[in-house]
Amino acid sequence: MDLNSDLGEGFGVWTLGDDAALLGVVTSANVACGFHAGDPRTMRTVCSLAAAEGVAIGAQVSYRDLAGFGRRFIDVDPVELADDVLYQIGALQAFAHAAGTRVSYVKPHGALYNAIVHHAEQAAAVVAGVEAFGDVPVLGLPGSEFLKAATAVGLRTVGEAFADRGYTPTGTLVPRREPNALLTDTDAVVERAVRLANDGEIVAVDGTVLKVDAASLCLHGDTPGAVHHAQAVRTALEEAGVTLEPFAV
Amino acid sequence: MDLNSDLGEGFGVWTLGDDAALLGVVTSANVACGFHAGDPRTMRTVCSLAAAEGVAIGAQVSYRDLAGFGRRFIDVDPVELADDVLYQIGALQAFAHAAGTRVSYVKPHGALYNAIVHHAEQAAAVVAGVEAFGDVPVLGLPGSEFLKAATAVGLRTVGEAFADRGYTPTGTLVPRREPNALLTDTDAVVERAVRLANDGEIVAVDGTVLKVDAASLCLHGDTPGAVHHAQAVRTALEEAGVTLEPFAV
Amino acid sequence: MDLNSDLGEGFGVWTLGDDAALLGVVTSANVACGFHAGDPRTMRTVCSLAAAEGVAIGAQVSYRDLAGFGRRFIDVDPVELADDVLYQIGALQAFAHAAGTRVSYVKPHGALYNAIVHHAEQAAAVVAGVEAFGDVPVLGLPGSEFLKAATAVGLRTVGEAFADRGYTPTGTLVPRREPNALLTDTDAVVERAVRLANDGEIVAVDGTVLKVDAASLCLHGDTPGAVHHAQAVRTALEEAGVTLEPFAV
Amino acid sequence: MDLNSDLGEGFGVWTLGDDAALLGVVTSANVACGFHAGDPRTMRTVCSLAAAEGVAIGAQVSYRDLAGFGRRFIDVDPVELADDVLYQIGALQAFAHAAGTRVSYVKPHGALYNAIVHHAEQAAAVVAGVEAFGDVPVLGLPGSEFLKAATAVGLRTVGEAFADRGYTPTGTLVPRREPNALLTDTDAVVERAVRLANDGEIVAVDGTVLKVDAASLCLHGDTPGAVHHAQAVRTALEEAGVTLEPFAV
Repeated sequence: MDLNSDLGEGFGVWTLGDDAALLGVVTSANVACGFHAGDPRTMRTVCSLAAAEGVAIGAQVSYRDLAGFGRRFIDVDPVELADDVLYQIGALQAFAHAAGTRVSYVKPHGALYNAIVHHAEQAAAVVAGVEAFGDVPVLGLPGSEFLKAATAVGLRTVGEAFADRGYTPTGTLVPRREPNALLTDTDAVVERAVRLANDGEIVAVDGTVLKVDAASLCLHGDTPGAVHHAQAVRTALEEAGVTLEPFAV
Repeated sequence: MDLNSDLGEGFGVWTLGDDAALLGVVTSANVACGFHAGDPRTMRTVCSLAAAEGVAIGAQVSYRDLAGFGRRFIDVDPVELADDVLYQIGALQAFAHAAGTRVSYVKPHGALYNAIVHHAEQAAAVVAGVEAFGDVPVLGLPGSEFLKAATAVGLRTVGEAFADRGYTPTGTLVPRREPNALLTDTDAVVERAVRLANDGEIVAVDGTVLKVDAASLCLHGDTPGAVHHAQAVRTALEEAGVTLEPFAV
Repeated sequence: MDLNSDLGEGFGVWTLGDDAALLGVVTSANVACGFHAGDPRTMRTVCSLAAAEGVAIGAQVSYRDLAGFGRRFIDVDPVELADDVLYQIGALQAFAHAAGTRVSYVKPHGALYNAIVHHAEQAAAVVAGVEAFGDVPVLGLPGSEFLKAATAVGLRTVGEAFADRGYTPTGTLVPRREPNALLTDTDAVVERAVRLANDGEIVAVDGTVLKVDAASLCLHGDTPGAVHHAQAVRTALEEAGVTLEPFAV
Repeated sequence: MDLNSDLGEGFGVWTLGDDAALLGVVTSANVACGFHAGDPRTMRTVCSLAAAEGVAIGAQVSYRDLAGFGRRFIDVDPVELADDVLYQIGALQAFAHAAGTRVSYVKPHGALYNAIVHHAEQAAAVVAGVEAFGDVPVLGLPGSEFLKAATAVGLRTVGEAFADRGYTPTGTLVPRREPNALLTDTDAVVERAVRLANDGEIVAVDGTVLKVDAASLCLHGDTPGAVHHAQAVRTALEEAGVTLEPFAV
């Protein structure tokens, strides 16, 4: 099992989350590339730390939207979106390379992540941007148009699950503004993580047991108690005998 | 002799210069990387055309300043400047790679270009950014702190001259806002180019004959009659028996 | 009848359209406010020229999207959208005031204009932003949610028509990427303008005669031959005895 | 005596300082206007809170530099700088007006503040921007070119002092990266504030007693223990019988 988290999401003087602490917990770092967050200085620092910790570096690509932190759907032309994605991966690759490693995978961020669960044109555009960069795996929601489009062109796909997000009975995430979007109880988060790792199951908000094909577990860094949750999940998985390692290097 | 020009300097809906025409004239394209100009779509297009024409691709790195087109000195911390440079080169490299080629050199833009003629800390920072990317040549003003710093760390340096810019008796460029900053007469521009290629000489505004060590000649694309000048220079150099080719591939 | 056009849509070094020429033709200037185009220097210049010509100044408010020129729908939170609108109007008002006049109306730009034809929440948000600024008229598409929402809170509304855009049989504009989106024949544009002014009628792409309640006619400045069209329309309307004046001062 | 502090310096998802707490302490709020920090939503919120608390609203104008938080000198053309300043004041005025009040003064931020202590052209440009907005006081460093230029055109000027910043023997601030730039001991900060209010004196880093003509005291919100310091200063001044009120309304 892989543990991934969003990192490097400050910008200039502003910080967000505790990158250094999370880099001691996760096996894969989704590094912001400057379009929703992530200035070059921060990208350099996160890549250096990740390389030193043996954490895989992924490009957390986004709509161009600093003011909205990439959390707003933008109806970008697919041709432009593919190029926006390629730009971001390329920029991050330079920092990964300077740190002695490379971009090992791509994971879309925020509204783009959510859009390409269903939006086939934008999903294909993101895949086209990744393909233009090279043959790296993509990380996304199981069953999404994004993973389908990536599979169709021969890219390796990795599904992820969320230990601290509510699931609807159909397997999608409860939107952030609705009740039960976030699990805040540590025991509940840990229990969900272990059950997912052992049995491939997640319980939806209505009690439905979902089968989830996920080789990576996403841990958030910007929610209350995020680092504490992440550490508790890692400890519990290790105690349950789950091997934690990046899905790609 | 190499002919270089600034290309891809539009942004979104806005265009600047005639990229397609200039790509038929120059041997090296200084491609804007998004900090002073150059959206991802434009970067992709210019890289594809350059690759098809056999034109070398250089990263035209800049201060982060879309509103000022990179023409204003910014007192950036050198550590941040190095990372800004690396970010831009990396982004462009992704497009060059997608077009089947690579970033072959780096040339700073505008106020950054001018600043690092004398500003040793920023010169060293730009060099540090280039070095972190890889062992590529840098293109700049002969005698500048920038080329000295690059030489000091073992990077190949290439000096350039300007056929359409006025020179002071000490070999620096006449600032754009002063008289005689730009040569607009085609014959004068062509004569200067041929004399430089054959004899390594440029005549300053006061008549002083300067010895200039330049393996590349910069042709502007955004001045009145720019494309016409560029074509006339190329034709004249070919008729004078000068071999035109990129200084790096 | 009022003639309006989008002006001040350059940014920094980049220009778009011929502001000075159009200011000699129109009676109302929709001035870009910095979110899709329009740097402060340009805003100052356009406001000064408009004041000198007796042209009314309107705030051309947009999504925050320089890279997309405001032509991409963004799913902005309505509370934030209202504040984005207020910010833009306030900034323009400072330049209008410095030029001895004021912001006389508000007209949304691009994708925002199109979105609030149907998107009730965003329409209400734009109206809330205008209301927070003050009691100024809004200019938009007749029958749109935007004009309805403005009427509901007591703002004066003014409908506009387009002499150079194709209309569907239901009275909406043909999207820009589809055929017949733009009329390029001057005679056709002029004929449409005169018929609209005299009879309040526009002929749709399928021949349907539409009744259009429009007190303002929008002339584009960024299409081929735009200024020529605009001047031809003004001349034809004057010859037809139509009084041309701003709808608000 | 007036107490001023920088407020509204977050951007989008990123926050900085504790605006709500500081608004309970200060009498004047220097509100960021979007160029170094301060999105429209934040501007609205801060203006509403300030109006409710009876705190005067000032425009904290800056170079256009989100990535550098306005802390880097930019060699902006003075004509453009004046317009950048006017843009920012106008935008803030819309929010102040919506909150039932107005922009009562202007205080430059960061590198611009420091530059116009000596840079006469930029100082004059900022003053020109303020004048174009209207007859409002400016807040700055006593003896600066900025205050001189403002006086020259008839604007009211207000000098400020810093309770938590080190002073050089010549009365300028110790640069932030040097030792003794910030006072972190609460007692020392409080003692300095009271001596300034009572006697108009500040002790420099070398022990020199400086006479400082300051009607406002600047309290920082982004330094360690900032809010605690600010509250301690206010309490001490009140106990010393100093009347705390805005210098302008």
